[in-house]
Order: sequence, then structure tokens, then C-alpha cells
Amino acid sequence: MNEELDHETVAHGMQPEDTPELRALYQGFKDNHLNPLWTQTGSLMPMTPTSDAVPYVWKWSDLLPLAEKSGELVPVGRGGERRAIGLANPGLGGAAYVSPTLWCAIQYLCPGENAPEHRHAQNAFRFVVEGEGVWTVVDGDPVRMSRGDLLLTPGWRFHGHHNVATEPMAWIDGLDIPFSRQMDVGFFEFGADRVTDNATPQFSQGERLWGHPGLRPLSGLENTVSSPLAAFRWEHTDRALTEQLLLEDEGQPATAGPGHAAIRYVNPTTGGDVMPTIRCEFHRLRAGASTPARQEVGSTVFQVFEGEGAVVLGGERRKLSKGDLFVAPSWVSWSLEAETQFDLFRFSDAPIMEALHFMRTKVSGA
Amino acid sequence: MNEELDHETVAHGMQPEDTPELRALYQGFKDNHLNPLWTQTGSLMPMTPTSDAVPYVWKWSDLLPLAEKSGELVPVGRGGERRAIGLANPGLGGAAYVSPTLWCAIQYLCPGENAPEHRHAQNAFRFVVEGEGVWTVVDGDPVRMSRGDLLLTPGWRFHGHHNVATEPMAWIDGLDIPFSRQMDVGFFEFGADRVTDNATPQFSQGERLWGHPGLRPLSGLENTVSSPLAAFRWEHTDRALTEQLLLEDEGQPATAGPGHAAIRYVNPTTGGDVMPTIRCEFHRLRAGASTPARQEVGSTVFQVFEGEGAVVLGGERRKLSKGDLFVAPSWVSWSLEAETQFDLFRFSDAPIMEALHFMRTKVSGA
Amino acid sequence: MNEELDHETVAHGMQPEDTPELRALYQGFKDNHLNPLWTQTGSLMPMTPTSDAVPYVWKWSDLLPLAEKSGELVPVGRGGERRAIGLANPGLGGAAYVSPTLWCAIQYLCPGENAPEHRHAQNAFRFVVEGEGVWTVVDGDPVRMSRGDLLLTPGWRFHGHHNVATEPMAWIDGLDIPFSRQMDVGFFEFGADRVTDNATPQFSQGERLWGHPGLRPLSGLENTVSSPLAAFRWEHTDRALTEQLLLEDEGQPATAGPGHAAIRYVNPTTGGDVMPTIRCEFHRLRAGASTPARQEVGSTVFQVFEGEGAVVLGGERRKLSKGDLFVAPSWVSWSLEAETQFDLFRFSDAPIMEALHFMRTKVSGA
Amino acid sequence: MNEELDHETVAHGMQPEDTPELRALYQGFKDNHLNPLWTQTGSLMPMTPTSDAVPYVWKWSDLLPLAEKSGELVPVGRGGERRAIGLANPGLGGAAYVSPTLWCAIQYLCPGENAPEHRHAQNAFRFVVEGEGVWTVVDGDPVRMSRGDLLLTPGWRFHGHHNVATEPMAWIDGLDIPFSRQMDVGFFEFGADRVTDNATPQFSQGERLWGHPGLRPLSGLENTVSSPLAAFRWEHTDRALTEQLLLEDEGQPATAGPGHAAIRYVNPTTGGDVMPTIRCEFHRLRAGASTPARQEVGSTVFQVFEGEGAVVLGGERRKLSKGDLFVAPSWVSWSLEAETQFDLFRFSDAPIMEALHFMRTKVSGA
Repeated sequence: MNEELDHETVAHGMQPEDTPELRALYQGFKDNHLNPLWTQTGSLMPMTPTSDAVPYVWKWSDLLPLAEKSGELVPVGRGGERRAIGLANPGLGGAAYVSPTLWCAIQYLCPGENAPEHRHAQNAFRFVVEGEGVWTVVDGDPVRMSRGDLLLTPGWRFHGHHNVATEPMAWIDGLDIPFSRQMDVGFFEFGADRVTDNATPQFSQGERLWGHPGLRPLSGLENTVSSPLAAFRWEHTDRALTEQLLLEDEGQPATAGPGHAAIRYVNPTTGGDVMPTIRCEFHRLRAGASTPARQEVGSTVFQVFEGEGAVVLGGERRKLSKGDLFVAPSWVSWSLEAETQFDLFRFSDAPIMEALHFMRTKVSGA
Repeated sequence: MNEELDHETVAHGMQPEDTPELRALYQGFKDNHLNPLWTQTGSLMPMTPTSDAVPYVWKWSDLLPLAEKSGELVPVGRGGERRAIGLANPGLGGAAYVSPTLWCAIQYLCPGENAPEHRHAQNAFRFVVEGEGVWTVVDGDPVRMSRGDLLLTPGWRFHGHHNVATEPMAWIDGLDIPFSRQMDVGFFEFGADRVTDNATPQFSQGERLWGHPGLRPLSGLENTVSSPLAAFRWEHTDRALTEQLLLEDEGQPATAGPGHAAIRYVNPTTGGDVMPTIRCEFHRLRAGASTPARQEVGSTVFQVFEGEGAVVLGGERRKLSKGDLFVAPSWVSWSLEAETQFDLFRFSDAPIMEALHFMRTKVSGA
Repeated sequence: MNEELDHETVAHGMQPEDTPELRALYQGFKDNHLNPLWTQTGSLMPMTPTSDAVPYVWKWSDLLPLAEKSGELVPVGRGGERRAIGLANPGLGGAAYVSPTLWCAIQYLCPGENAPEHRHAQNAFRFVVEGEGVWTVVDGDPVRMSRGDLLLTPGWRFHGHHNVATEPMAWIDGLDIPFSRQMDVGFFEFGADRVTDNATPQFSQGERLWGHPGLRPLSGLENTVSSPLAAFRWEHTDRALTEQLLLEDEGQPATAGPGHAAIRYVNPTTGGDVMPTIRCEFHRLRAGASTPARQEVGSTVFQVFEGEGAVVLGGERRKLSKGDLFVAPSWVSWSLEAETQFDLFRFSDAPIMEALHFMRTKVSGA
Repeated sequence: MNEELDHETVAHGMQPEDTPELRALYQGFKDNHLNPLWTQTGSLMPMTPTSDAVPYVWKWSDLLPLAEKSGELVPVGRGGERRAIGLANPGLGGAAYVSPTLWCAIQYLCPGENAPEHRHAQNAFRFVVEGEGVWTVVDGDPVRMSRGDLLLTPGWRFHGHHNVATEPMAWIDGLDIPFSRQMDVGFFEFGADRVTDNATPQFSQGERLWGHPGLRPLSGLENTVSSPLAAFRWEHTDRALTEQLLLEDEGQPATAGPGHAAIRYVNPTTGGDVMPTIRCEFHRLRAGASTPARQEVGSTVFQVFEGEGAVVLGGERRKLSKGDLFVAPSWVSWSLEAETQFDLFRFSDAPIMEALHFMRTKVSGA
């Protein structure tokens, strides 16, 4: 691909002389809600993806205190629906969009609180960087939320949360709200004001039916758009990553790269992504390992789960600790470096890009 | 679905008392590029799709003179690339977006002119409401453009146009530029300054290989993302529609509705849409026929090809004649009414909505 | 793959000493309907496919007179259902199986005769090497049968034939009867004793709805297992092949090999094979052209439609003229040689082999 | 479907008078390897599947002693390859085919013995009804075989077995040998004379990479035809079934029918069957539960894993105990009845029938 755009050409091509006649023409365009291509080609159709969104790092040490303060000052309830504080990409004009497609928020729930039930076309997940004590009730199925777990609420499922512990709990939410808002695909419906089932079982019904490796219930032979397994437990994730690194030690081709274990969370009915618009993964680097610089179409967010390391993001190196989040917009390069064992949760809009055949990837030397 | 949103609830829920402490919290959000959900739920997550784009009609009698004037005043060439005048949805702040996903422009090429070759990730088509004399050269294959034809230039194919006739020619272009721009998926590359093949064959190589009903060349057994048949001739479209109405007369279930013949243009390697993001169809209503009011997720554009009729668009009735265009944004209802035989070309972003499982449709009584 | 099977090893491995005890054991197997693997490995699991079926050529000059004589002596009607004379592969014990999966018969219908309606799970087609005047009525849709046409009657569609001309007509039938019989998948149901529609339209309803290149009726958006287009006309086949050879002359990569044009008949709703078990193709070689020797898993039948040439079949060269048929069982090599322009219809069980992932292909130098 | 076949019609239709001329015609058919349809319609194309195979029960108490005796008398080694004793359906002329598509054998391996490595296009699995101590080495990956486990050796993987315990071990093998033999799809290749890896790990590499519910290694993002998870442990199967029955107790729709828990073993890359030709399932009935009579296209084999019960097979009731096997050929009805908790392993050729769109199912009242 020709990376060397001749900007002079673009800027000067097809620009006619400024005459009264031309001004009249341009006024005619305006009056008739028209807009000529030749005055805007470069910005409309850049040589490579050039996002308004910028690469950015949020520190957990900044976020958590603000969430705690919100817990004191802001009641949770119908209308606002959630005590969720969205990461607002500095390039996107203040909207609570971490990227043009993705929403990422820290959500905070105090002991005894209920986040009321609702449902929406938007797909959602929660990932728990620390804490426990909240159950999210998804279409009547209470799902425990514990450290390291990924919990899904795919589109159009009723869901509410309640905290049965004595401590507040914080976690991150990921959704496709910006995509849904800009592409006009959202539907929303209120449900019960309090969660409809107060039970606090160790395992959800979905896990009990679907959480057995390679086994599918005969009562569930129809494939579903989103994963019917909606709780992915840390115990399994940790074991899968541990085994990959052990297999690498034994000389087997098990890892995503040297010292780099990684799993994708999948829909067991298809083997594909857990939801149609959001990909979720977990990455573990050995101390000292790093990943090659990578550019991808579409945007991605990482949260450090454990350990110390850094990201080189759009060419700039930033240190990362537990809870820190960063976003890499489309085609902005990122690579990870681990000081200690370095565990990161990741989500992205890759399913959108792949479904529409826009995905491209470029990997540079480590 | 609960269509009755209790706005009071939304407006007043979770709004804490305005105190200095709260202001400090909100300032903390701002300083850290955060944005709370509870102040914005309604607009972020509406009850049904609520587009910034508005339903709108453009009259061909307004567009064509402006295009002709552009032919006089604006040279076509490298940089601006095309003498294309984009329909700018009045709700989208002046951008040349006919909807949040789609671009629609009138393109105009004078005798002897060349629109230089380039390629881009964006998918494109042309539809010819009148005229002839232009060949579009797609990856080296010259494709004649004539009245009633649909011509494709799927993503990443080099393409340029030249007019070999003695008259100017106008047609409409459809692309996924707004989607590509907002989702950051675009790549672009310049090609030759003039079309690379000046031949003006009656049929393109693609048609000669692929334009035989139900027959696939053994040299083309791999499925392709976009249709390898890139020219859909009016002769075939007209015959298909004619046959549907005759079959309806014979009592066969051939039409889309009473008096309503319709075809979808498809990729012969899959039977699916011609390109991953754009659906193209052609609709014919008998004089006096009408369609039920229809709401769909995603946006759609129609252009009248022939005949007189009207659209009831978002509740408002607008008369339509040859060349007129209208856009229905997501979930805005539309229905067609035919005074004479009424032929319309249609395109939409439905493949996006279906691929990501956001499609919903609601049809009301005629 | 190790093609050098050590037959000594196979023959002598694991063969225990013949003792009374062993004989008692073997008798025990027999009494209990058991059969040990070690006495039969080589024949059960050969190194490469080793069909009981043999490669064979049937001459049209032998078949047609016998069909004509049947027309005189054997009435067509309910019970026998069809005046169809099956090709019986000499290796398959006299059964009317041209191969282990496929049935191929010459069918003959005299003026005024009716082949009664019935339906069955088995998939069927007809290909017309010469003649005209018969209509086959498929689920109520009368389909003209003319020289060079391929006509489908996919599984479980009612169908009957009648001859409205003044001359008898002969054609070939292809079905998956042997597969269905051996795999026990067949269902059968009698229908009307005479065809239910005596009309003799030029084009069937299916063609009128589906026979437009790249256009799909909105009334037919659900994909179907078999092709809804059930008549593939010689006019289109001939044109597609002609264009491929012209494109080859122009230096385009249009043919299956040098001087070798070929099309596959496909289901327009999927781009895949016309029926789940049978692939149909048409091949044309320029005079003097030949194809490389080819081995495939699964069996295939060819019929010469026009021209003079030869097949090298399992190493033996056989001359072929119009109407001649040959079968190549699994993994038996075949290559074609054209003396004049050489047109051949082909069908095979390749969709079975591909669907079950058993397909392998080996192509040797021409 | 018309189940009432008028046999008189079939028998007498189209049977011409026996004349010298007709005899000459029939001799002509014979001489030219032809066979007329009208003399054979009923048997070739039955009204419903009418298998040569018969429903049959094999008692473990008969099989095991014969296997033990084979262990004494017959050495295991190259040539015979396996000490496997195939179930020979009484209707299939003595061939070691449990059905027209499936092979089922009891395999027996003494302490210290090695079943040499080979590979073949045929798909295979082992299911362990009792015992332990054998490792099967599949493409270099040693896989422990223990009671209740399902182990796969999909097509074209090298595999051998060795017994490291002090006791002999017996298990059942299932393969698609009859299908492969009759359809001529088999390839075979010898490997090492002894297993290539003598390690006896608790878990195979495949399990360590793939045996985590809902998690997919990034090193394995390409879908595979057969399951990369090749060991399905009893621990998981038992837990999945237990949970289904508990969920049923809680009022959830978790079971296949009242008191009937069931899982299908699946390929985690697709959610589909573990191999292209063989479906594997495990069924558990509560004491006293039964299943409705079921007819399916294609054949199926059950083995009792634990408990006491019965099958009503083709209308005949047969008691079943641990280890007993039965086969239901195509369209023969079967239903299960449990006296105690009743656990059964099942395999079938359903993936063949579904892939080729021949599957039909008929369920009658319990």
C-alpha cells in the first residue's frame, strides 16, 4: 500500500478558481443539502485509518477514588440506571466513548444496593479486576461476580445487579454503546426496579448447563448469536494460561508468541466470539516477555489484571499497574512489555471488523 | 417492547443534589476524561433507534442542474478524484453523509474526461438513472455504464471512469464512506491518472465469466466477499420484474407483495449481498399499488428510476418523479405508492445490521 | 502417503497358529455375530480407495436401440414407474448401480406417454443429449426438456413426465439411488397417475423467477438445500463455455486449463452444488486439447454431448462419440483428449465427499 | 407420507408379457451391463428406509470372555494391527459391520502390549466401559484411557496404543469403516511399530490446550474438521448430567426429556460434532424414566455404561445391563426404559445424514 500520500496533490487537485459563479454553485449545494467530494477527499477517505479517537491510558489510582466518591454522593436507581462512569476518549469531544465503537466504564455498587433491571439491544459484559459480593441477574439467572471473572449480558437480556456483601464492589463494564448510538441500532426497555431473584448461588444455571468442556446439552442444540455460557471463571482462565506456558516449556506450539499465553472467550455453540460485536480475551506475559508492535483495524481496550509492565502505545511507552486501562484506536500500534508476570484482560470490536471484512493486521518486529 | 418511556423517571432518576462536593466530583470526572452514565442515559440508549439523521427527499430537478454547472466550473482530476456531489443529510451537521452509514452522490463526467484510478477499502457502486457513454475500469476490466445498470466497485479494487461519448453523463454513486470514516476502517491508494484500458466492450470480462444464470466457471470456485459479477444489466432486471408480475397474474407466489415485484442483486458465489456493507435492490409497483409502512434498523436510500408516485416517509407524504431520491434513517417508517408503474432502485446498510444481528423489522398495515 | 503396502506384512501379521482352541474362539465369534479385524484389515482398510466398481464405457450406439426396443415392448406406468434402463457397473454384481453412489439410466418416452407422478428422498436430474418434446412436471411446474438442457428434480418433489411430441424421446437420468439404498435414507410416495399440469410453456415458473443472472426475488430470500432454478438451458451453457474460450484467447484466466472450458451448475441461493449429493458440470475441450490425468475420491460419470475424442480411463484409452458414457470409480485416473471440439456433460458424488471431508485429488502431468 | 403402499400396483405395473422378443431385449440388457428400473423399483426405492441390517443386541457377558480368550491366543501386531473384534450385524452377510455405515468392536490389550501406529482416512473413537492403564498416542500426544472417557482419533492422525498396567484392558472402538469401504474413501498408512511416546501423563496436550470451558487458545484460531479436544473425561460428563437433573428438579428446561439428561460431545472450534461422520452422546435416565419411541434416518449404537434397564427395539423389549450393546438401523424405532439410574454411551452416523440433508425423525408417545 502506498503509505506516502502526496498531500500537495490532494490539497490542490480539482480546486477550481474562486469566481462568483463558483460561489453561486457552492451556495446551491448548501441550499440543497449537498456537499462536493472534491473539497474533502483527504479527510473522508484517509490513506490509512485516522481516528478522531486518541490512544490514552487511564490509571486505576485515579478512577477508583472517583468511583468511591460517587458511591457516597450519587444514589443508584431507575433513570440513571447504573452508577457507571464512562471512559471518555479525549479525541471524541467529551462523549463517554472510549473509542468510536466501544464503551468502557467503572461501575460501583455499595452494600445492599440494587441496580434495577432493564434490557437493551446493546451487548454488554463485566470484568472484575477485584472484589466480590455482587450477583448480576440475567434473564432471571443469578450470576456471581468474582475477581477475574468475565460475565456477559448479551443484547436484549434483562439484567440487574445487587450487592449482598458488606463492602462496595467495583468492576468494569464494556458495551457497544458508541457503535449502537452512531449506527442507530439501539432498543431499550425497563424491567423490574429490583433484581427478580435474590438467590446467590455459586454457579449460574448457564454455567451448570454449558460449563463443561466439549459437552453440549441436548436441550441446547440450536446455535445462539451470543454465548449461552455467560460466566467465565478465573479458575479456568488461569489454568488455561498456566498450561499454555507449561506446554511452551515442553516445546509444544501452545502460546500466541514467546512467553505470551492468551485465550479468547468463545460461544460454545459456535466456537466464535461471545457476542456479535465484542471480542474478549485474556493475555499473560512471562516476566521479561514482550509482544511485537501490532496495528489492527478497529479499536481495543486492555485492563491490567495483575502485575507490572508497560505498553508502547502509538510510539509512546507508558508504565502500567493493576487496574490501569488503555485504548488503542484503529491502526494505532501497541505492544506489551512485562516486568513481572503480567496479566491483562482485553476487549475489542474485532467481530465487527471481521464480519464486514474490513479487518487488516500489521505486525512489526518485537 | 415498552414504547412508552417514562421520561420523568429518566430525567429525575439518580440525579443527586447539587452540592459543592458533587461539583468537585464532576470536575474530577472531567479532569480524568470520564463521563458518568447517569447524566446521559436517555440519549445514549434510546428506547428505539433515534437517529440524528432525518428523513429527506432530494429532487432530481434540483440536483441535475447543479451537477451540470459543476461540469462547467470544476475540473475532474487527481486529488479531488471525482466530480461527485454528496447528499448531505440535514441532520448530520453538513457532512456529506446521506445517513450515518451511507454516502450517496451524483457524479458527472463530461465527454472525453477521465476520473483517475484509485482504490479504497470502502465499497462502492454506481447506478445509472439515465444516459450512457461512460466506461468504468475496475481492476483493468472496462465496464460499460448504461441506463438501468448497477455497477460494482467492491473494496480495494482499482477503478477509474472515462466518458467516450459526445454528451456528459450523470449517475449516482453509493458507498459506505460514513461508516468507514466513523468506524475507522478506511485505506486508500492512488492508481493511474487515466484509466488503464480504453477499450469500450459491450460486456465486461466479469459478465462474460459470471453472467450466466446458475452457471459457475470452474476457474472461479473460491467464494469471494463481494460479487465477481460487477455489472447487472437493466435488460435482466426489467425481465425479472416483468416475470414476477406475470407470475402473480397466474396466481403464483412470486412477488414481494400485491402488485409489488422486487429483486435483490446478489453475489453469485454465495447468493448473498453483492458487497459486505451495502444491499442493492430494485422495486417495481404496478400503477395503483402500494406497500405497507415499514420500519427497519439501519438506513436506506431510494431513487426513482421511472414513473410517478409517492413515499410516505416518517408520516409525511411526498410526491416523487424520475431521479428523485429519499433517505429513510433507522426505524423511520416508509411506504411507497404508485400512480403509474413505479420503478425504484434501492440501497441500504442492511448487511451490516444483519451481520451484527441488530436487524429488526416492523411492518404495519398498508 | 506410503503407496508401497507391504502385503507380506499384512498377510502374515497377527495370524496365530491354527489350533483347536483358536478354532473354538473363531466359532465363538461366529456364534455371537462377531468378526475379528485381524483377519481382514487389508480389504476393509485399503491403502488407497479400491472400489469394487470398475471403470467402464457404454456406447450410445448400443444403448439407444435397446431403449427403442423397450419403447415397443414395455409399457410405462404405475409400479415400474419409469421406462429407465440403468447402467450396471460390471464390478457391482449386476445391480443397476453405475457406481457405489450413483445411478445412471437412459429413459425413453414415446409420443403421448405419461410417466406417473411420484416423489422420493433421492435426488434426481435429467440431461438431454438429443431430442425434445417432453415436459417434466415438478411440484406442479411444467419444465420443457430440450437438447443440452439439465433439469433437476431434487429430493421429495413430486414429478412426472409426458411426451407431447410425435417422436419418442430419450435422455439420461442421474440419481443417488445406490447411496440411498446402501445408506438406508430413502422415502418414496406415489402421486397422480398422470402429470398434473398438461401445459407446455417455453419456460418453467422456476426459470422465470430465478433464471436472471445475479438477481434474486425478494419472495425467495430463504436459502434452499437444492437449487430453486431447476432448468439450465443449453443456450446459457453454450454461451458460458464460448466466452471462456474467447477470454482465454484474450489472455484472461477464464478456463479450467489450457483449451478447457468448464462450468458447474449451481444453486443460486448458495452458489454451491445444485443438490446435496450430486455435482453437475459441463466441459468443453478445443480440438487437440487434453486434460491432465486426474484421480479423485468418489465416482464420476461423463456423457459425450458432441464431438469426437477419447478418455484414458484407468490407463486404458477408449474412443468416444456422441452419447457415449463412462464411469470413473473412486481414485481411478481419467483424462480427456479432444479430436474435434469435444463437449461433455459430467456428474459426480463430489458433494458427498466434500461435505464429509473425504475429498482428495491428485493431478498428474497432461 | 403415504405409508400404505399398494403392493399389487407395484408388483404388476409395467410388467410386459413374456415373449421371445422381450427375452431378447432382457438378454441385450445383460450383455451390455444394463438393468431396467421397472423390474426392481420396490427394493431399490422403498417407501421408508428398509435396511438389510437388523436391530440386534450383543451382551457384554458374551463379548468379554471372547475378548479375553483372544488376548491369550492372538498376538497383537503389524498387519492385523489391532486385537479388535467387530460386531457383525446379522443382516449384513457376516461382514464386520454393525450397520451399513458404522464399525463397532471390542478391543483388548494385555499388559505390556503395543498396538502399532498407523493412520487412515477413517474416523475413530474409543469409549471405555471399564478398566484403565492404556494410553493411546495420537500424532505424538499420549492420551490416558480411563473408565467413562471418550477418546478420539479423527481421520489421518497417526495413533497406536500401549498398556502400561498389570491388567488387560478392554474398550470399544467406533469407526466409519463400512461407510468408507462402500463409498471408497479410505486411505491407510503404516507408522511406527511401537508407540512413539511412552509417557503416561494424566492429561494430554490437547486437553491442556482445549479442555477449558468457553476458552480457546489464540494459537488455535483456525477451525478444524474434527475436535482438537480428543479426550472427554468421565468427570465432566458425569457432572454435566448430574447438573441437568438437578436443574430439572429446580424447574429449569435443562433435560432432553423428563428424567432424561443427555449431552453431545462437540468440537470446541465449531460447536458441531466431534468428527465429520460420527456423532457421540451420553444419556442418563433416572430410575423409572423412559424415552418416547424414536425413529431416525441413519443407524445408531448404544452401550450401557452403568445401571439396569431395557430397550424396546423395533417393537421388541430387551433387558440391558452394563456393557451390553445394541444397534438400531435406519428408521427402526427404539426407546429406553430405566430400572435403576441408567447411563448409556451412544454413537451414530447422524452427521452424514444431516450434512447430506437426508435426516428425518419421528417421535411417538412414550
